[in-house]
Amino acid sequence: MRQVWVDGKPSQQIPVDDRGLLLADGAFETFLVREGTVMYVDEHRERLARSLGVLQFSTPQQFAQGMIAESAALIAAVGTTGSARLTVTRGSGPRGYSPPVDAVPRSLLSFDPLFTPNSAPLTLGWSTVKWPDQPLLSGAKLLARTENILAALDARQQQVDDVVMCTQDDRVCSVARGNLFLRVADTLLTPDLSTAGIAGTRRALILNRFAKVAGYHVTTASVARAQLLAADEIFVCNALWGVRPVARIGQQQWSDFAASRALAPLLDPEAAVTW
Amino acid sequence: MRQVWVDGKPSQQIPVDDRGLLLADGAFETFLVREGTVMYVDEHRERLARSLGVLQFSTPQQFAQGMIAESAALIAAVGTTGSARLTVTRGSGPRGYSPPVDAVPRSLLSFDPLFTPNSAPLTLGWSTVKWPDQPLLSGAKLLARTENILAALDARQQQVDDVVMCTQDDRVCSVARGNLFLRVADTLLTPDLSTAGIAGTRRALILNRFAKVAGYHVTTASVARAQLLAADEIFVCNALWGVRPVARIGQQQWSDFAASRALAPLLDPEAAVTW
Repeated sequence: MRQVWVDGKPSQQIPVDDRGLLLADGAFETFLVREGTVMYVDEHRERLARSLGVLQFSTPQQFAQGMIAESAALIAAVGTTGSARLTVTRGSGPRGYSPPVDAVPRSLLSFDPLFTPNSAPLTLGWSTVKWPDQPLLSGAKLLARTENILAALDARQQQVDDVVMCTQDDRVCSVARGNLFLRVADTLLTPDLSTAGIAGTRRALILNRFAKVAGYHVTTASVARAQLLAADEIFVCNALWGVRPVARIGQQQWSDFAASRALAPLLDPEAAVTW
Repeated sequence: MRQVWVDGKPSQQIPVDDRGLLLADGAFETFLVREGTVMYVDEHRERLARSLGVLQFSTPQQFAQGMIAESAALIAAVGTTGSARLTVTRGSGPRGYSPPVDAVPRSLLSFDPLFTPNSAPLTLGWSTVKWPDQPLLSGAKLLARTENILAALDARQQQVDDVVMCTQDDRVCSVARGNLFLRVADTLLTPDLSTAGIAGTRRALILNRFAKVAGYHVTTASVARAQLLAADEIFVCNALWGVRPVARIGQQQWSDFAASRALAPLLDPEAAVTW
């Protein structure tokens, strides 16, 4: 059963004047939890600090550090395996866009026991929803997630697991629920996120650490639709899925999951890999 | 003192699994209330329906109609003058971007007694925050308001009343808190909102009704920064301010407020106009 804490105390409600609710004034992180341990806590702390910095919270590093540490402690006390989400809002405020000068950020942590995560290869469609072109916010994981919601509806309508989302100028950016990697021979490419998208913690780990360990060159790139379809292998990554290969986009199919097989256990030794 | 209702009942709290809070999955309207009457209720209902339609709520027209009617009734029972905000979220849901198939939207209505609204001419700066380029969502008034928040912080830092926000390709779009109109001789222009911005109810009223009554031609246009500064008059409109002229942007000053003077009492006969 889900457990929820608001500012570290069990609660099922938040105040109606919360700026996260009224204006999407906040950010969040989704954690994979293994037996009470938040996986990759440093990467989550760093990205949360970046997101809060984009929103000009007064001391983003301190807020991120304090709230991630508190979350890790609450989750450790539960002690089981599951998924968790930490939401940080600007807290309560009066009417209007302008945040209070003395805003007191609010944390909302929820923990869900994880059912056997489905790691089966993905069937993707192409989303009709494009990312906004917004370099100022790109990479951050903010509460404002309208495009992801609409893309998820798009995936439901197309009866696929997820959809490829492009930028306004029609470059491949991500799927609704994670980042994309392409393998071409021994090189991994992931879309450049300078104008749109969320910079995933697993994306960063593959770029900075695990691609090399698995024996691949890795780089960020501008990726055209045709280039995606011409890749030798495609996989998606996020905190809960880890690495999950793509089996099909439209009529195009893939069955060589070499990079996915190499990376999945590096990211998550407990990952249930069936391919 | 502020009064708040959740789904029509007095409340100060909402559930922690509300998708408006977690993913900005919702929209809102801000009402001017005169002695218990929501001003321009038809325009607000129409825009709310459009916003909920953009979010693919199942029956946006019905939700908007029902929630606006309920809000108007609650506000009528209070019977005083003030401002109100109706927030409509997708309601509660499980983890993830995908809305529940049977989502039950939630309404959150707050009413604040209005202090004497400041209608003094505005001093504006130029925002460093640009609107995202996103034709799909343009015009709607969604909960995802990150750019408006950052622009409001920008205005605070520049010590101005508000800031002019441009599009990614540097065309004038709006201010953080409302829409912009330029007057050039007998013609009013307001920026085209095909790629960014919120289509204000007062903007629509001026375009469709009041400009003509006041004796002006009116049109939407692509507006360059230099064109804004070269205008004979500039004014801002929103639900609470009505029409408010611009006295200064940087070193440029204006003192001819003819169109503002003609339009302000048409939009709001009770408007406190001192210029």
